Amino acid sequence: MSESPATSRILRMALVQMACSENPAENLSHAVQAIATSASAGAQIVCLQELFANLYPCQSEDHARFAQAEPIPGPTTEALAAAARENNVVVIGSIFERRAAGVYHNTAVVLDRDGTLVGQYRKMHIPDDPQYYEKFYFTPGDQGFITVTTSCARIGVCICWDQWFPEAARLTALSGAEILFYPTAIGWLHEEKAQFGASQRSAWQTMLKSHAIANGVYVAAPNRVGSEGGIEFWGTSFVSDPYGEVIATASDQDAEIVFADCDLDLIDVARTHWPFLRDRRIDAYDGLTQRWLGDG
Amino acid sequence: MSESPATSRILRMALVQMACSENPAENLSHAVQAIATSASAGAQIVCLQELFANLYPCQSEDHARFAQAEPIPGPTTEALAAAARENNVVVIGSIFERRAAGVYHNTAVVLDRDGTLVGQYRKMHIPDDPQYYEKFYFTPGDQGFITVTTSCARIGVCICWDQWFPEAARLTALSGAEILFYPTAIGWLHEEKAQFGASQRSAWQTMLKSHAIANGVYVAAPNRVGSEGGIEFWGTSFVSDPYGEVIATASDQDAEIVFADCDLDLIDVARTHWPFLRDRRIDAYDGLTQRWLGDG
Repeated sequence: MSESPATSRILRMALVQMACSENPAENLSHAVQAIATSASAGAQIVCLQELFANLYPCQSEDHARFAQAEPIPGPTTEALAAAARENNVVVIGSIFERRAAGVYHNTAVVLDRDGTLVGQYRKMHIPDDPQYYEKFYFTPGDQGFITVTTSCARIGVCICWDQWFPEAARLTALSGAEILFYPTAIGWLHEEKAQFGASQRSAWQTMLKSHAIANGVYVAAPNRVGSEGGIEFWGTSFVSDPYGEVIATASDQDAEIVFADCDLDLIDVARTHWPFLRDRRIDAYDGLTQRWLGDG
Repeated sequence: MSESPATSRILRMALVQMACSENPAENLSHAVQAIATSASAGAQIVCLQELFANLYPCQSEDHARFAQAEPIPGPTTEALAAAARENNVVVIGSIFERRAAGVYHNTAVVLDRDGTLVGQYRKMHIPDDPQYYEKFYFTPGDQGFITVTTSCARIGVCICWDQWFPEAARLTALSGAEILFYPTAIGWLHEEKAQFGASQRSAWQTMLKSHAIANGVYVAAPNRVGSEGGIEFWGTSFVSDPYGEVIATASDQDAEIVFADCDLDLIDVARTHWPFLRDRRIDAYDGLTQRWLGDG
């Protein structure tokens, strides 16, 4: 497989599940090393977790943290591009992007095997929950949902909170993506874990698997691990096949690389045996662009 | 609870999981008896499975089977209305509807506690798979997705194949439904069960739970049980709460009534703690009314 990655329809992917430190250079170095390790093990695409270069910055509203942001392309993108080129592997990275003064995004970049920046996705759905104050930092994306044609597959990228929105997965899949990647930073609040933790993680898995099933695509979610302040990131990075079967997963405690071999020909098999795209009632979906359809 | 069903926010529902015979009168009698049993046990809403009055009619394309259909209102609706009135319970039934010559639908009716027909839903997504030849029989619904305000809750009804389409659940929930009912007839083909059965049923459960989570609603699916021709209907009727937790379920072998107590106040709790409806990007969903957004 490693001899003909561009033509085989079996694609090996790697998801890098990391614990992060306060030192961005150390986090970037960890990521670059994981890209090399992944490529050595035959991976053709490597996806990093959300905002891998820093501690999760949104546990409080702190203007000083905008200084972590950088333009695209910028130093982190360049470092990932070099890692992609040197290891002949597609890399999906996640960047705290400074687009302009006061316009910051939570953005994913796609770097092809030659290091070319072939696509970027700016997070469309922005959360705002206790200790996930993302609306303070991130301007919602204005470029919609995307498919990027890389040298080994057509891929879509959504980011974390997007996972709860079937609309995001559907629009990304309809634009041609064969695999939906979700760089993620999701975890338990310490005070909630005992009572709600299992249910929260199960719901997260359910939603991502549902996107795979409903759209007949692979879904891959690399998630952060380790405790930072009030959050214990739950790792559990995983890959679902188009039937919602988990074909690879990680622990909820350790830094790991998750490998999965994905048969891209299975997408057409799944979509003809579970022919949901055939039967969508596009004549009846206008209401999806409305906020509320009931009284009030 | 049974003393103030209209004002309590705890609602007891019952799902009737039946095996069917060739004798429609026998099936109807079974359903009417189950409605009485459910009400005696405190249920305020009873939902029957898809096309409960007959053997599943779509395993082959047989013009003679159109004779099973009836108008709405018609004999089956009237019998269910009487059962609703006599037992002071909301009933959701599923009818092979003859609307006009050559216009037949797979339709759910909602009968309030006084027997009034307060709503109907005509199945929007029609399957066509080996032994599920529904496109031969059923004209796709033309009335869209609905919420029916009954005396005890605002309910939505989708039907079986709709379960695979997040759009159907979303539009129904946005129209105000607190509970989505899915009268269902899904099963294993005998020759597929050993290899694919567990995965198929798991995917079905995943999709229904995902609708509960994404929309912050209860989801309830009564499913047929028993073998008919080439299909072994897998029962497993269940209710999911708004977090995707299964709060009641049935076996895959037996006729059963599944009871669940649903706290309707939990819907607002779920939607404010998992605030997905707040964050939908309605400015960016236009593509959902398109068939395909990629090349070609």
